[in-house]
Amino acid sequence: MTATVESVDPRTGQVVEVVAHEFTPDEVNASCEAAAAVAPALDDAGPRGRARMLRLMADELDTDGDKIVELADRESALGETRLRGELARSSFQLRLFATVLDDGGYLNVTIDHADPDAAPAPRPDLRRMLVPLGPVGVFGASNFPLAFSVPGGDTASALAAGCPVVVKAHPAHPATSERCAEALRRGAVGAGLPAEVLGIVHGGPAGADLVRHPAIRAIGFTGSVGGGRALFDLAAARPDPIPFYGELGSLNPVVVTAAAAAERADEIAVGLLASYTNGVGQFCTKPGVVFVPSGAGGQNLRAALADGTRGYQPGAMLAERIRDGFRAGADARIGCTGVTLLAESPVPDGAGFFAPARLLGVAARTLLDGNDLPTIFDECFGPLTVLVEYADDAELLATLAHLPGSLTATVHAGANETPTAVVDLLRPRAGRLVWNGYPTGVAVAWAMQHGGPYPSSTDSRSTSVGTAAIERWLRPIAYQSTPPRMLPDALQEANPWQLPRRVDGVLQLP
Amino acid sequence: MTATVESVDPRTGQVVEVVAHEFTPDEVNASCEAAAAVAPALDDAGPRGRARMLRLMADELDTDGDKIVELADRESALGETRLRGELARSSFQLRLFATVLDDGGYLNVTIDHADPDAAPAPRPDLRRMLVPLGPVGVFGASNFPLAFSVPGGDTASALAAGCPVVVKAHPAHPATSERCAEALRRGAVGAGLPAEVLGIVHGGPAGADLVRHPAIRAIGFTGSVGGGRALFDLAAARPDPIPFYGELGSLNPVVVTAAAAAERADEIAVGLLASYTNGVGQFCTKPGVVFVPSGAGGQNLRAALADGTRGYQPGAMLAERIRDGFRAGADARIGCTGVTLLAESPVPDGAGFFAPARLLGVAARTLLDGNDLPTIFDECFGPLTVLVEYADDAELLATLAHLPGSLTATVHAGANETPTAVVDLLRPRAGRLVWNGYPTGVAVAWAMQHGGPYPSSTDSRSTSVGTAAIERWLRPIAYQSTPPRMLPDALQEANPWQLPRRVDGVLQLP
Repeated sequence: MTATVESVDPRTGQVVEVVAHEFTPDEVNASCEAAAAVAPALDDAGPRGRARMLRLMADELDTDGDKIVELADRESALGETRLRGELARSSFQLRLFATVLDDGGYLNVTIDHADPDAAPAPRPDLRRMLVPLGPVGVFGASNFPLAFSVPGGDTASALAAGCPVVVKAHPAHPATSERCAEALRRGAVGAGLPAEVLGIVHGGPAGADLVRHPAIRAIGFTGSVGGGRALFDLAAARPDPIPFYGELGSLNPVVVTAAAAAERADEIAVGLLASYTNGVGQFCTKPGVVFVPSGAGGQNLRAALADGTRGYQPGAMLAERIRDGFRAGADARIGCTGVTLLAESPVPDGAGFFAPARLLGVAARTLLDGNDLPTIFDECFGPLTVLVEYADDAELLATLAHLPGSLTATVHAGANETPTAVVDLLRPRAGRLVWNGYPTGVAVAWAMQHGGPYPSSTDSRSTSVGTAAIERWLRPIAYQSTPPRMLPDALQEANPWQLPRRVDGVLQLP
Repeated sequence: MTATVESVDPRTGQVVEVVAHEFTPDEVNASCEAAAAVAPALDDAGPRGRARMLRLMADELDTDGDKIVELADRESALGETRLRGELARSSFQLRLFATVLDDGGYLNVTIDHADPDAAPAPRPDLRRMLVPLGPVGVFGASNFPLAFSVPGGDTASALAAGCPVVVKAHPAHPATSERCAEALRRGAVGAGLPAEVLGIVHGGPAGADLVRHPAIRAIGFTGSVGGGRALFDLAAARPDPIPFYGELGSLNPVVVTAAAAAERADEIAVGLLASYTNGVGQFCTKPGVVFVPSGAGGQNLRAALADGTRGYQPGAMLAERIRDGFRAGADARIGCTGVTLLAESPVPDGAGFFAPARLLGVAARTLLDGNDLPTIFDECFGPLTVLVEYADDAELLATLAHLPGSLTATVHAGANETPTAVVDLLRPRAGRLVWNGYPTGVAVAWAMQHGGPYPSSTDSRSTSVGTAAIERWLRPIAYQSTPPRMLPDALQEANPWQLPRRVDGVLQLP
């Protein structure tokens, strides 16, 4: 007998229903083979056919929205408002990738006509475009039961690219995962495509089997450094290594300059409180460390943030394991030399997965002189942030030089300040630089970048949010001297799909 | 004492001079640190400054061309004509990347203006572009002492991207490597940039040290499956894994349809002979297996190719180890069940690194029924190809389904034939599809793709030849809500660099 997969209510800690069982290797194999079997159909549908599919999938999600949000709330305790927003984001994301397909620029069509006089040697006709990698595996995230799980950005971008998806459902929300998968499959079938473009598997061992399966050509993952790195290592150790797009953990440092603290201490405190406790601190973009100046402005900021923390009412965390991990992480930080507990929130009674929000403080000098930098600069997933007090710019810059890679880095500066030295240290360490703002709240847009240097991402060349996410599931192919009858539509001279193209070195709009 | 690095003449097998010594870990460290120290200067130079540098580097290579070609010929035995062409290709490549920098499209500038009414949530101002990864390591290839070594495509594309390069010189041509490095450094200094944008290290252990060095952010490699996979594994096992662009070995299958053999047997034989013996068969794009129909057309092709092979005069191979590896590979294939030696070339006398060219034959049926497919479908680096005789389309397609990933796949078809089933099997297995042509001779162009599924490349999403090679050394970064005074020039609203951009979802030409 394989283990059952249970749906647990984090607010009560109780099992509500048994949703599935952990998949055996044979069952994972069947899911992957089914995905491989329908890959040609998804590719042949072309951008137009897949755009239609994505829009129908979005419609099906919206239509079943009430039930999906109800299930997601029961399994995540994130609340209806947040989850309605997440559902809207998920269906928006599917429709945005339909727009990407309509545009067609993602195909990167490049044509060099034959040129017998070309330097340094005669050139044949060459036509290059991007094609789908093949079936991909996607790991659902604990903290986004919708927008980073079955109907999330990895799934939307991979299907848009023409890659069937096998999702490894997150154990924190198996019922939501199954319900969403059904909606997406209805959308596929409605568009005349096979339901098997979207598969789903359950269980930890199934995840490892998925990464190792020969038919799987790439992996999208969001989760912990430990689990993610183990799967990355599996992907790299395959006889044929495959791309592994893992988002493993992020510190998201925030620097508040002395001028900013003097100008806007209260405003920044309000923003930081909302950002570090948003979703019970369970965001990959949660600010985990804030550099605050000593002096009056910094003291005001610290005091206001401590007040806010004491008044915060934490919701239940996503799962027991996540709550326990958060408690351990908080304790480890409190145990570091010179760290003080500046404030703590109340915690509700009951058997749910609760833990207090915590605001910690430490001096930059203490960190520089001691051995605790790696602990303080590690991700702590949950409602906790560390205020690092710096005496002057030299101390600030010396401490920033130790920061690991992060998804984001944020600067709060004075009205006309140009803190170039700070930005020069943050830029190589982040995928997104936020100015006078807060790192949580990741817009789904053409210009978004969500993925920074390791460990925030295993592949800083890629993004998991925004339209460029489609690039992760494609590879180039060139056709040399190929007659029109054998060329794909996208490479035909007459440009029947009206694509932007680079022709003989010159970018052309359709 | 560390081991010396000797320059050997392949035509005589004699050591001509001692060029360097194998680098110690401290020396590799110094080279990598020097590269890291100049990385900001190379980035700050911007596309315009780096374009100027690349053009001066090309000029310096051309100016020193006589001496470089003389050294390269002495160390590779590839002959003056080929090496003059390779030099021209190398300086052309540097100038082509200068054009890529002038164009600026490679920066992928994307701007989404702030939109408080955006769905599904208000959107801040977001501006995304690509930035250099940092210093990169490049491994010179044995078979291209210029175009895939110190002044080759990896170096040109990485410098263009803004990444300093540390080259691990190939032991087959250390003197050429040093001479070319000096020319490139003169070009850098002439453009007002530090000579250290181009470093060079010698010795096998130095290569491993280079891959592991914390300052190195990506690797470009061309070489054997064994050595390349070992270095790929080192890169993936780092505390912070880095991209490894390895081109490890390629079979480059050629399919000749029955119609093509009937129409053009002699012509195809002439082309194949030139392609499989070009550069003494030492090309990553050498056709290693040719599918030939049974019947009169196929017989004619086989006979003509056997005649040509018997008349071919092989030059010396690049190095003793390569010659020995080729002999062993040829013997292993001749030892396979059903394989016959159709023809063999003469071999010159003397102590140089010579080996005969060989044309082998085997029946597709024998391969399908036996256990030798993995041996026949493995790369054999040198002047050897295997003609696989197929009785009918079913036998052909069944055999093609076993092909590994290759850089290229070639189809020779009849004048109006549409061999769709063949192409459908080849396309997922290749980076470039060649129609009625030959895989050797890789044009340096915007639409070139040189990199196919594993093992031909460790990253089929990338190319090592053509303008898209620059993409390998870049990562995206997004600026959120950033005031103009803190934005890079490339992201300024007024578009001072006149870049193609995608603004609010719409691609715009400057």
